[in-house]
This record gives sequence, structure tokens and C-alpha cells, in this order.
Amino acid sequence: MTTSTKTFAGNYFEDFELDSVIKHGIPRTITAGDISLYTGLTGSRFVLNCADTVAKACGFEQMPVDNFLLFHIAFGKTVPEISLNAVANLGYAECQFLAPAYVGDTVAVESRVIGLKENSNGKTGIVYVHSVATNQDGTTIVEWKRWVMVHKKVPSGVTGINSEPNLKSYLEPSAKLLPPTLDFSAFKPEWSACEYLWDDYEAGEAIDHVDGMTINDSDHSLATRLYQNNAKVHFDAHAMKSAHHGQRLVYGGHIISMCRALSHNGLANGLWLAGINGGTHANPSFAGDTIYCKSQVVDKGEFEGRSDIGWVRVVTWGIKDVPGNELDACFSIDNGRKRFDKNVVLELDYTLLMPRKQ
Amino acid sequence: MTTSTKTFAGNYFEDFELDSVIKHGIPRTITAGDISLYTGLTGSRFVLNCADTVAKACGFEQMPVDNFLLFHIAFGKTVPEISLNAVANLGYAECQFLAPAYVGDTVAVESRVIGLKENSNGKTGIVYVHSVATNQDGTTIVEWKRWVMVHKKVPSGVTGINSEPNLKSYLEPSAKLLPPTLDFSAFKPEWSACEYLWDDYEAGEAIDHVDGMTINDSDHSLATRLYQNNAKVHFDAHAMKSAHHGQRLVYGGHIISMCRALSHNGLANGLWLAGINGGTHANPSFAGDTIYCKSQVVDKGEFEGRSDIGWVRVVTWGIKDVPGNELDACFSIDNGRKRFDKNVVLELDYTLLMPRKQ
Amino acid sequence: MTTSTKTFAGNYFEDFELDSVIKHGIPRTITAGDISLYTGLTGSRFVLNCADTVAKACGFEQMPVDNFLLFHIAFGKTVPEISLNAVANLGYAECQFLAPAYVGDTVAVESRVIGLKENSNGKTGIVYVHSVATNQDGTTIVEWKRWVMVHKKVPSGVTGINSEPNLKSYLEPSAKLLPPTLDFSAFKPEWSACEYLWDDYEAGEAIDHVDGMTINDSDHSLATRLYQNNAKVHFDAHAMKSAHHGQRLVYGGHIISMCRALSHNGLANGLWLAGINGGTHANPSFAGDTIYCKSQVVDKGEFEGRSDIGWVRVVTWGIKDVPGNELDACFSIDNGRKRFDKNVVLELDYTLLMPRKQ
Repeated sequence: MTTSTKTFAGNYFEDFELDSVIKHGIPRTITAGDISLYTGLTGSRFVLNCADTVAKACGFEQMPVDNFLLFHIAFGKTVPEISLNAVANLGYAECQFLAPAYVGDTVAVESRVIGLKENSNGKTGIVYVHSVATNQDGTTIVEWKRWVMVHKKVPSGVTGINSEPNLKSYLEPSAKLLPPTLDFSAFKPEWSACEYLWDDYEAGEAIDHVDGMTINDSDHSLATRLYQNNAKVHFDAHAMKSAHHGQRLVYGGHIISMCRALSHNGLANGLWLAGINGGTHANPSFAGDTIYCKSQVVDKGEFEGRSDIGWVRVVTWGIKDVPGNELDACFSIDNGRKRFDKNVVLELDYTLLMPRKQ
Repeated sequence: MTTSTKTFAGNYFEDFELDSVIKHGIPRTITAGDISLYTGLTGSRFVLNCADTVAKACGFEQMPVDNFLLFHIAFGKTVPEISLNAVANLGYAECQFLAPAYVGDTVAVESRVIGLKENSNGKTGIVYVHSVATNQDGTTIVEWKRWVMVHKKVPSGVTGINSEPNLKSYLEPSAKLLPPTLDFSAFKPEWSACEYLWDDYEAGEAIDHVDGMTINDSDHSLATRLYQNNAKVHFDAHAMKSAHHGQRLVYGGHIISMCRALSHNGLANGLWLAGINGGTHANPSFAGDTIYCKSQVVDKGEFEGRSDIGWVRVVTWGIKDVPGNELDACFSIDNGRKRFDKNVVLELDYTLLMPRKQ
Repeated sequence: MTTSTKTFAGNYFEDFELDSVIKHGIPRTITAGDISLYTGLTGSRFVLNCADTVAKACGFEQMPVDNFLLFHIAFGKTVPEISLNAVANLGYAECQFLAPAYVGDTVAVESRVIGLKENSNGKTGIVYVHSVATNQDGTTIVEWKRWVMVHKKVPSGVTGINSEPNLKSYLEPSAKLLPPTLDFSAFKPEWSACEYLWDDYEAGEAIDHVDGMTINDSDHSLATRLYQNNAKVHFDAHAMKSAHHGQRLVYGGHIISMCRALSHNGLANGLWLAGINGGTHANPSFAGDTIYCKSQVVDKGEFEGRSDIGWVRVVTWGIKDVPGNELDACFSIDNGRKRFDKNVVLELDYTLLMPRKQ
């Protein structure tokens, strides 16, 4: 009996070539079911993604797909070729939401290898990719850069590959991040049941989002499968028994979505995500963990010629098993290096679009 | 670092004003995904909500949204302002389903405070509200009254607030509870695989619904998030560890839906809910509980000029971890007060519309 | 208080009559939510069921409903009358997918009793049925035969009923199993991110599908309820405590779907299921089990006049808690009888349609 070599075990460091383009497979048509299941998985309540009436009053054709749902679906497409063998997802940068996606749109994703850097141990390396998701018309709807640590096929010592891309730690909000037809001039705070608009936030302001949500095994499994993210660490409890943590890891994207949903209490009018400036999964999460979060407003600004809308840059920290008000500092600086508290599971730096007072 | 006061911790007894109207936020467009997820969460099989072919043959445009799915979505809208701080959901009354909802409809909800009553302990009070859910055209689709016990901000002793509304214990079925185009004259029992129609039920008849269903943690979390009900007691296992029951409570509405789904075996042709006369969550439920139920037909009646349809008033009891045939009495009367058996989790008094024999 | 006899406890061996036809109730309209929830429950990634763009390029109107999702929904319709009292689901044969189903189609199912055979113990018997699922236009979309062991109402000894149908162990693929408009001549392997087409598989080839997926309690409960399969053994943990296995059993169809989803790694271009030749649930599965699978290509063939498509017959074994490469043999032959390894939970013999090289 011949044994097939048709299964794919993911790429290793040596398989990546600088500037090569990877066409990820399995384009995905977003359905109304994805919307509802995302609500069921996260409890998200941002009104622009909940009501056609509100979305239309804000210039959209219908409810746009939640930014993070879109991101996770697009991200999932890249997992087989980029991160199936990832030792760790090290970070995200320069994520921009360039056009809304609607139910019925089909998302396809390509990635370009923009950096390769061997680690000094000779056993692993860091792969930097720029991924671009387009809809069926070829319009880019979201793009991002990320870097992951992957194993070498052969731990052969250092060969000198060292090409790091120049990543921006922050993307200055610009008019291109405004969905073309978006118009908040008719927005009513009663829609979100939250009176606080762009005008009310100020740099430095801290928000403890109060609420907590416990992760169940099925929750994170369902979410990760919904995104067709097939990374083994999230699904195979048998294999994970003998791995470092002894159990399945929760997909970091599910933590992001939980924190986004929890942040509704305090940021309910942060209705649209212009982009993600950076993100770190500071510690792993497991089923049974209760996730809380707190945020800090970093900056805010206007768009030229627009009195209906402004941007607010926020950093949100996800924390497990400690309410936000019981944790004084999410991180400390030790010799110039940021060290996260052991209960901090996420740091996410992102830019929200908010209606302004009319 | 300033700390934001933008988060909302829910209303306390002192925050409610008699006759004031609360516009609840976050209108919700119902999608096909909500329908499927509800089926997945409950296993409900009432044929009018399962098949467009059947719904059209009964006068509907398409499958109407299940009455309880609609109720839970509408109810969820009221949680932030009414019951986020509820000590207990004490009861429901006068719930009427006035028009069908379809996929694509957007539900918005308002509540009027119709009663306020301090408790003699000075620490809590009872808030009575009348909630009305409308669709995008302003048509009322479901309305109900409920009362909840909420904490006082300041346990200041009794100040004399005592205004109880006059609630009906039962709503006489009338023509306005018939969806305008509903017509059962072409109904075929083979559609529901149940031969028993309105003609076959009689007042006093008891039904043991036989089947049981065990609650998983993800089931009730998914359901409650699907309804965007953000009451902390259902989600935050960390905080609940130090609360009275030591664990998360299952949303009572999920128990109602489980019992409705289980009641299919015996009441499969109770195809449409005219209304809920009253409801009590007699004891809390937790993940791991197996829910059984039994019912009693209280009364039945006709609608003037209609030979296709009749109403049947039913009381259903939800019971945990004891099959219906093993529990003789769901409650006893002790000094004129109803005392529920410790395993009874729900008593629901409601009115079903059923096809008549042709 | 009269006690109703309106509940249905399922049919016993004596209730079945040879050649009688059973019209199963509760026709079901398939929604976009079913598609998404199936993705969330299984992680399935076969591209024909994921992207409207790909489906249209292959001759379909839109994404067809996944063959197994359709099968499970249709199968679920037959449970109340056929297998509610089943001691065991013994096998499947001659399952054919005759026309694609789309979102919005309404599925109704009828079964004919094609065989009845008493067991020598006098307590049970085997019921053979031929089930046919049609859409709202009366077109047959899927049909199959299956046999189940059911209890006798009265264990009365042997009465001589012994009518076994002539079941084919294999259905020769023919043109009628090709969906009428299906055309793979424009198929691009980059869509599935898998280069292996019909031309690349050979009889005898073994495939270890590598990945594993752990079953959570909510996963299988949600799946089984989504299919409106109400067999008690999957839901009632209280009753199952005192049954043979002491816990709920996972619906065998969920195992089939997990294996199909896992088999994507190695069989990604097995895009359409022509039929199921046979199936055996070799051992029970429970929440907590991790499912792996391996396959063997049995045969392959062409369709006359078609250079775009060919068929591949595959047997897939589902295995619990042992990766495929650690289990040498899924079964042994003992005195002419196949004996499955104790970790093997499924053997499924089916025929895939695959694009050919252009």
C-alpha cells in the first residue's frame, strides 16, 4: 500500500522566499449565518453591524460585516500556508479596513513575503507577510502585515538570512480609511443607547469595561472553525496533552473579538474600525478563563472637511480572571522592554471612527 | 490618567420614574442565521417556523420568526436599562404577539415604567415595565409586561413609593391575536407528523412530554449572546464563583425555549403563540442540568367566524433532572401560597393557536 | 386529571409493515444560517461549498449545500418514525446525491419499508428502509437505504418474519450521479489550494489525514439539534447515566462530518459526493474524544464523454484518540468477519467527483 504524500503539513522557514506571492485557497462567501453566529459567539452589539435601518441611515447599503469577523475570515485563509507551523504569532501591524464587506461578498486573500529573519538559535525564523483580502470585484477590503515565528525544517545553524521590513507602529488616519459612502451626520446616539460621541473622548482617558465573559470549549472551537482557521493547537486536545500547556489554546482572534464586544460598554459609538496599529497576544488563553478588558484613549483627530466623523486611537488590554479595576498596570517597563502582567492576554492598538456631535 | 465614567452599570431603583419611557438601543435586524442558530440551540421543530412551503400554505409570506426567538431578541434589548442589576426576574404578564416578524425585519423596543414598589427591607424595590417591540414600519410585533426586583443605590429605608399596576393574570384570546393573513384551512397534519388538532385537546388534559435535554455551557452562553442579553450572571464565571450559587445561571429564556421545543412531543400543532399569560422562573438552572417538561391544558376556545383555527391555553412546567412522570406535583399550596418543587425551574402559562379539523 | 396519549414514543418492530410508505413530517427550508453553522461545527473547507464564485464557475447557480449537511437534515426527518427506539444504526447503502440543493430549498422525506427481519432472541428485529428526500419541486435530491435494530413491543419469541432486501454493496458511478450543470473544465486548483486532481490518485493509495479534532459537548448537541434529529441518546445526560455507556452518545453523522472535514487535507478536490456505498459506526464516540481519520483509495474511473471530471471511490476510517499514523490496521478479519479496532469509530465507503487535469 503506497502512502500518499498529498497531505500538507504547512510551510517551514526554508519554504518562504522573499517577495514571493502566495495565493491562499478557498475563497469564502460571507452569509447571513456568519453574522448571527458571530453575534452568538461574542455577544457583540455595535449598532452599525446589528441593524439595516441604522446602517442605511449611515450611508451603507445594508449592515456591513463586522470588521473583526471580516478580519478573522480573511486571516483564516492565510493560516495553512503561513502559520500552520507557527511557534508563535508575534504581532500585527498596518491593518487597514479599506472597503465594507456585505453578506454575499466573496473574500479571497493573497500574501507577499516581505521579510525573513533567522533566529540566532538556528532552529527557527521569523516570517513577515503582507496579506491583502479582496472581494469578488477585486476591491481590497482589508489588508494587514503580520509576523510569525516558524520552525526550520533543518535546524542547520545560522545562514545569514536577515531581511526585516520597515513596519510602521502606527498608521496616521487618512481619508482613504473612510468607507466611501459613510456619513454619520444623521446618527442618533439613542440607536446605540450611548450618549458619548467623538467630542467626549480625550487622550489619556482610561476606561474599565467592567463586564467579564467566560470562554467555553465550544465557543472558541466554533469561532475558529467558522473562520476556517485550521491551526492544530486550537482543536486537537489529544495532541495538546503532551504539548507545553497541556491543553488546547484559544485562537487569539477570539480573544480580540471578546474584548471588542466587551468594550461596547464605554466605547459603544466606536462604530467602525479604520485599522489596527498593532497587536500582541501577551499570554495564552484557555477554556474556562474569564476575559475582562480595559482601554486607554491614546489620541484623537478630525478628518479634513468632515464635521460628522472623527477618529479615536485606543489601546485595549484583555485580562484573564482579574477584573480590570483590580489590575493596576497591564505591563511594566523593564530595561526598556515591555513586560506584560501574567494575566494580560492581549494588547491591541487600533483606530475607531466615531460620530461627532451635530 | 483620568478614569472614564462612560461605562454603564445599569439602573437602580431610584433611577426609574413612574410613567417615563425608555428607548432601548441597538435595534436588531433578524437574519436567516438567527433562525438556524435557534434551531441548533433548541432543536425546535414546529413546522410553521421550519418550512417556507408550509408557512405560505398557512397564509404567511415565508417562515415567520419563531415567537420565542422574537421574544428573546426583543427582551434582550431591554436588559441594559431594566434588569442589568436585577436581583430577580419576578414575572411576566400580558405578552401578546401582534404581528409576525420575518427575516430582514428590524426590531426596536421601548419600555414604559408602569409600577414602582419599594420593598419593606429598604434595600430593594420592584420595577414594573410595559415593553413594546416594533418593526421597521412601526408596527407592534410583540409587547409584554414584566417586573423585576432591583437594588437601591442607597439602602435608605422605606420612602413610601408604592404604585402597583393592575396586571391581568390572563388575556382573553381575541381576533387581534390572529396574524392578519393566517389561515389554517389548508393545513395538513402530515406536515407536522402529528394528527392531534384543536378538536382533540380538552381542558384538564395533562401531557408528559417525555424527552429530556441536557444544558451545556456553550448552549446557554451562545443563546444568551445571540439575544444580545448582557446580564452578567450568565457570562462571568469568575465573578459568579463568589456569588450565591457559585456559578453562572442559565438565562431563563433559554429554559423557556427548551421547554417549548420539548413540548413539540404532544403539542406539535400548537403552531403559533398568541401570547404569554404569565411566567415564573421557579428555581435557577445551571449547565449540566437535564430539562424535562410536562403541561396541562387549562382551557380552549374558538374565534368567531373561524372554522380553521382555535386557541388552547396551556401551562407548561420545566423540571430539572427529574422526568415528568416521576414528579407527581410541580407545586403545592401552602397557606394560600404556591410553593414549587425544588426541581421545578419554570411555570409558563400561554395560549397557542392550533388548526382545527376540516 | 386525564393523562394524554398524544406523545409519540417512536415505532417498535411490530409497527413496521413491509412495503408501507412513511411520510416523515416537518419539511425543512435550508437557510444561509445552516451553511454557516455547519462550517462552525465542522470547520469544513471544500471550496465548492464555500464560495459562490467557485460554484458558479463550476456550473452551479450558487454554492450548493454541502452533501453531508443535506444528508443529515434529510436523515433527521426520518428519526422519529424509524430510529427513535433504535438499539443500533447498523448500516447505510446505496446513498445517491441526485440533484444539488440550495439555500431556500425545502426538503421533505418519505421512507418505504423494504425489509423486516426478526432477531433470533425474539426481542429485537431489523428494519430496512429506503428513504427519499425531495425538494419543493418534487425533484429527488438525495436517497439512501439504511437498516436499524429496533426493540419489539412484546418480546414474544420468533414469529418468522424474515424478509431481507437485496442491497448493493457498491453503486457503479453513472452519469445520473453528475449534477446536470456541473462542469469542472474551468476549475483551477489554486481555488482549493491543492494541486492534486483526479489524475493524481490511484487505487490502493493510503492517506493519513494528519489533523485531529476534539468533540465538545455543545458541538455535537448543536449539530444534532440543527439536523432536528431528536434521538434521546444524544441529548438526555440524566437518562444516559443509567444506560450502558453512562453518558450521551455523539450522533454518528457528526463523526461522518468531522471526518469529511478532516479529509480535506489530502482530498481537497473531492468536491462533490456522488454517493455513499456503505457506512458503519464501528464504536461509539463521546464528548472529549479527539477524532482523527485515514483513507484508502479503492478505485477510480471516468465518465463517458467527460474530460473534466472523474470519480474516486474512497474508504475513510474515523479513529478516536489515536492519530492515523499510530494505528497500523483499522480492522482485522477474524473467521471471515471484519473486526474493527476498539478506537475505530467509523468506516465510510463513498464516491467522490473530482476535477481532471485540463
